[in-house]
Amino acid sequence: MSNMPSVSNNLNDFDNTLKNIVRAVNEKLEGIAAVPDAPESAVYEAMRYSLLAGGKRLRPVLTVAAAAMLGGDTDDALTAGCALECVHTYSLIHDDLPCMDNDDLRRGKPTCHKVFPENIALLAGDGLLNRAFEILSDMSEFKSISEKTALRLIGLLSAASGANGMIGGQVIDLMSENKPGVPEDLLLRMHKKKTGAMIEAAALMGAAVSGVSAGSAEYSAVGRFARNLGLAFQIQDDILDVTGNEAVLGKPIGSDEQEGKTTFVTLLGIDGAEKRQNEYTRAAVGALDIFGEKAAFLKELARRLVLRDN
Amino acid sequence: MSNMPSVSNNLNDFDNTLKNIVRAVNEKLEGIAAVPDAPESAVYEAMRYSLLAGGKRLRPVLTVAAAAMLGGDTDDALTAGCALECVHTYSLIHDDLPCMDNDDLRRGKPTCHKVFPENIALLAGDGLLNRAFEILSDMSEFKSISEKTALRLIGLLSAASGANGMIGGQVIDLMSENKPGVPEDLLLRMHKKKTGAMIEAAALMGAAVSGVSAGSAEYSAVGRFARNLGLAFQIQDDILDVTGNEAVLGKPIGSDEQEGKTTFVTLLGIDGAEKRQNEYTRAAVGALDIFGEKAAFLKELARRLVLRDN
Repeated sequence: MSNMPSVSNNLNDFDNTLKNIVRAVNEKLEGIAAVPDAPESAVYEAMRYSLLAGGKRLRPVLTVAAAAMLGGDTDDALTAGCALECVHTYSLIHDDLPCMDNDDLRRGKPTCHKVFPENIALLAGDGLLNRAFEILSDMSEFKSISEKTALRLIGLLSAASGANGMIGGQVIDLMSENKPGVPEDLLLRMHKKKTGAMIEAAALMGAAVSGVSAGSAEYSAVGRFARNLGLAFQIQDDILDVTGNEAVLGKPIGSDEQEGKTTFVTLLGIDGAEKRQNEYTRAAVGALDIFGEKAAFLKELARRLVLRDN
Repeated sequence: MSNMPSVSNNLNDFDNTLKNIVRAVNEKLEGIAAVPDAPESAVYEAMRYSLLAGGKRLRPVLTVAAAAMLGGDTDDALTAGCALECVHTYSLIHDDLPCMDNDDLRRGKPTCHKVFPENIALLAGDGLLNRAFEILSDMSEFKSISEKTALRLIGLLSAASGANGMIGGQVIDLMSENKPGVPEDLLLRMHKKKTGAMIEAAALMGAAVSGVSAGSAEYSAVGRFARNLGLAFQIQDDILDVTGNEAVLGKPIGSDEQEGKTTFVTLLGIDGAEKRQNEYTRAAVGALDIFGEKAAFLKELARRLVLRDN
């Protein structure tokens, strides 16, 4: 039995297709977020709270859509994408902690350490990171991929979330606080690691599920798509922090300026940032040309992400 | 080329054999702790600081010695054990943080967040956890195990360190603070998870490297050995917190009493705790009888751990 509805490349169905993938992701995460009746259940409650706090589910959508484009098993891609979403959620919980960004709100809701004690929030993050690797190492979670592919998924995810990936980006971000003169190459390095690495891993895990070999032109194209998408996505975050609507965004605007952060907007201005964003989006969309009609959904997803208001 | 010296079961060689395994572990960890020349190097410095801060290396020694007993590849066991030691070190860094135990000293040295900013220490813990899974998912790190076995190692490690393992134990520990009336069954559950799960995983990873199947009598025996060893080890911690020498121990004594913690000593008294410890040690040693002479090193290791003064 398949949990994943098929991914249509008819753009008239785009909204429905996206909604269906997000629904499948949320259903799968609901199962992952089960809370046992045990003395240590508090940490599971906190894991559940953050995992089910909403969000665009961009990363698992990318995994599923990439696998659909490449003829892979979308149920297995859903599993892989949800494991990655656990890691993404862990990073948000730790990022929000008092010693990090000290944020009270995330997606319009109180952050994990505002609802639970700080130490439980810290451990909930740790728990979600471990949970991702528990899922990916359990072959009973998958329908058709090989053990070799499961290992490849773990390699992609751990590298993207580790010190050479997302964590490295967070370190550069922390070091850049209240230093308005951050050069563009360091800003790019930060974003490529902090958000880009996991977005790239999400798409590449979809390719890995589909058996696309790491040295192939198809694999490179998916990587190039995701890297450019990640940068366009980040610029939209920077733009929304200036022009966004707090109620729609679910968090205060103007925080980058308040914290003296260098962003694409402070470096290039709004117009310059939008121009750069369009270049990245075009590069992302163009990278998928080799897949023809099958890339329609992913291309449209990239175009829509630039237009988002939250 | 083998990095691991052979593991002798001649007890006259015990001290030398143990020293050689520990040396091999430290050499391997030295390589894992390399610091790249990069803008985000601070987090690697913090990972290195904690990973190389010393310690008994009990867990990787168990992995290597179990593999040696079972005829497995001790180089691959060394790799697996060092990945587990990364996870152990991550747990120490996070356990020491201000929102957790707020400890200033670990193994006689300032804790990670005392040497580095708190947020870098948090991320160094996260980095070490990810690093473990990067190592275990990279087949080029291993000489002879299969992809199926590598997945099995990842499954054992992530389950032992996750919310149903070590993290769950930490949660029970946090909830029990300043509650002197913790019942014995909850104390046991806490220790089985907080320290026991990772000690068990260390030994079982040695069995997995050796190709011992999960349903076999040998596998059960190794698990029973490690679970009993873990409890005996924990009781020694509790006893040393009362009777230990601060200089030898590298941390203040009497902290359990100060924090109003329930321990085996508060529940059973020193004599009762030592009696219980001897029972667990005997059970651990007895579990290995089925392996005959080949178990001599591991049995002696269990006996020595009860006699340790740090």
